[in-house]
Amino acid sequence: MEAEGTVPSEGLIPEVETERYVIEENRCVIGSDVGGTKMAVGAVDARGAIILRHEAPSPARDGEKMVTTLVELVNGCIEAARSEGFEVVAVGIGAAGFILHADGVLMEAPNIAWSMVPLEKISTEATGLPSFLDNDANAAAAGEHFAGICQGVDDFIYLTLGTGIGGGIFAGGRLYRGHRGTAAELGHMTVDPNGPVCGCGRKGCLEALASGTALEREAAALARLKKGSLLLEMTGGDLELLTGEMVSAAAEKKDPAALEAFKRVAYYLGLGVVNLIHAFDPETVVLGGGVARSGHLLLDELNEVVAANGIPSLIAGTTITLSNLGGDAGLIGAGAIAWEGIGGPS
Amino acid sequence: MEAEGTVPSEGLIPEVETERYVIEENRCVIGSDVGGTKMAVGAVDARGAIILRHEAPSPARDGEKMVTTLVELVNGCIEAARSEGFEVVAVGIGAAGFILHADGVLMEAPNIAWSMVPLEKISTEATGLPSFLDNDANAAAAGEHFAGICQGVDDFIYLTLGTGIGGGIFAGGRLYRGHRGTAAELGHMTVDPNGPVCGCGRKGCLEALASGTALEREAAALARLKKGSLLLEMTGGDLELLTGEMVSAAAEKKDPAALEAFKRVAYYLGLGVVNLIHAFDPETVVLGGGVARSGHLLLDELNEVVAANGIPSLIAGTTITLSNLGGDAGLIGAGAIAWEGIGGPS
Repeated sequence: MEAEGTVPSEGLIPEVETERYVIEENRCVIGSDVGGTKMAVGAVDARGAIILRHEAPSPARDGEKMVTTLVELVNGCIEAARSEGFEVVAVGIGAAGFILHADGVLMEAPNIAWSMVPLEKISTEATGLPSFLDNDANAAAAGEHFAGICQGVDDFIYLTLGTGIGGGIFAGGRLYRGHRGTAAELGHMTVDPNGPVCGCGRKGCLEALASGTALEREAAALARLKKGSLLLEMTGGDLELLTGEMVSAAAEKKDPAALEAFKRVAYYLGLGVVNLIHAFDPETVVLGGGVARSGHLLLDELNEVVAANGIPSLIAGTTITLSNLGGDAGLIGAGAIAWEGIGGPS
Repeated sequence: MEAEGTVPSEGLIPEVETERYVIEENRCVIGSDVGGTKMAVGAVDARGAIILRHEAPSPARDGEKMVTTLVELVNGCIEAARSEGFEVVAVGIGAAGFILHADGVLMEAPNIAWSMVPLEKISTEATGLPSFLDNDANAAAAGEHFAGICQGVDDFIYLTLGTGIGGGIFAGGRLYRGHRGTAAELGHMTVDPNGPVCGCGRKGCLEALASGTALEREAAALARLKKGSLLLEMTGGDLELLTGEMVSAAAEKKDPAALEAFKRVAYYLGLGVVNLIHAFDPETVVLGGGVARSGHLLLDELNEVVAANGIPSLIAGTTITLSNLGGDAGLIGAGAIAWEGIGGPS
């Protein structure tokens, strides 16, 4: 991926080669991670490093303003990267929503008031650069493959555990997007048809049972039952104020309600992960997103559930691990989508 | 896939081209569909037609005898094909069980007393021909792609509904096998963690809720409750004798218990299909196997369940359809696996 290979390793370096080397080292793409709460846009180099970054809150209730804000951020980053001497060669957009990949169109997005937005065309016209659109969790998976924990791993499943649950699938070293581009909506696989109602309106989705939102809901319910829970103290008695971070902090301090909430979430997450292993036979299942930041609380429990509920010879080939890019996976991955679009960084 | 393309369409046909044409038309492979009940072995030509076929019951309790029976059938078919003037170029084996694809090893199989059998090596040594091993449902999916309903369809899911439920995944025009080769165990995805116990020992697998076995179980339970059911008449009052064929026949005659059994199976099958559509975004979901032979009883019901339980913009791109190869999909598909192994039929 790096340009070093084009530089002769001994003897005089021909001038033309040196020049080419310098140019390639200075090429970058723009990656945009577009969610319902915020947009993070940055310049990403050929190694997956973030050179610079601009952020803004998402005007999620106003679809047109979403587009203008995004375009402004992207053009701002292009200018900033150029002023630092970089050649900007492409734009990648990872957006929360269902994507028609061949058309570069965002069909619809939960929590954002836009639909059938031709984001690829809009970005190409606004920037003059080749632009590429994908789902935000697909992009995060691409980030893990490009510069994170899954470098060199050809077959893996990425799950981002936050307010909701997103998914990305790598098959044979490439993103698996399906027939139209909407594959890997892994948060909306039914795990329990009698489970709680999901944001999508259906019952018992993995997202309804194992997301950060589910963790908060279970923790609040348990804290109401268990007097003296740290969670009551942390929220000043108003469990409506409970956050995932509080649940994690309380669990670190062995608060029984918080620990039990993690256990419940890990159970359903484990059933979902077993289903994914049985279906995909991945080398790795990677957990990213906010909940995964408390990954050590989740991982032991999760491994136990998978061992207890999976078919032994099927689960034997898969390792469950945590993202090492954290919140940057989506931005770096949007950069990876851009590099992929123009045929790679070198 | 056919050799016609090599024959000039006008003018004199050069002799060497004619010769090549004749030879290619006479090439075939051996396909073996190895299940727990029977083995079907046949010669399959470059178009996916079965030229000849030998069958034998599977000595499922004796792993060594499984191997010798299979080798005898394969060598018998090779001889028979050669005596009819065919050049046999490869052997494909589709076996019920978990396969380590790169090693050509069958790890283990439910209902067959063999484990860690190097079937690819055994077949290569016994026949002198390049041999290729895959899971039986993977092979059946390859059959549908090679010569069945999924010719030209790049992204599809195949489900075989029989005693159990097997699965095969095509992604980008090729079988998706996963990291080791055990992908697509779609019958063992949990659909209801409180559901009935599956043959694999786990609870609420798709197989436990939507296979032919599940259909019989539900129909028998319903017939016990509904006096005057045709099913009681058909079994002479002994519902232990109930078969899937009887349930289908009774449903055709609008027997309420039989219709309700199909409805229950279609509900869980529909939840499973929705999960697969959300995960894979396939162009087509194909149903094969014994239950699918009563496909029209299932299909309307199934489409309703999928429409009611899927996310509209995700399920919009997928069609559910029935296999048109029926019981031959596995044998033809084992042939397709052999052709794939040697780089294609032409």
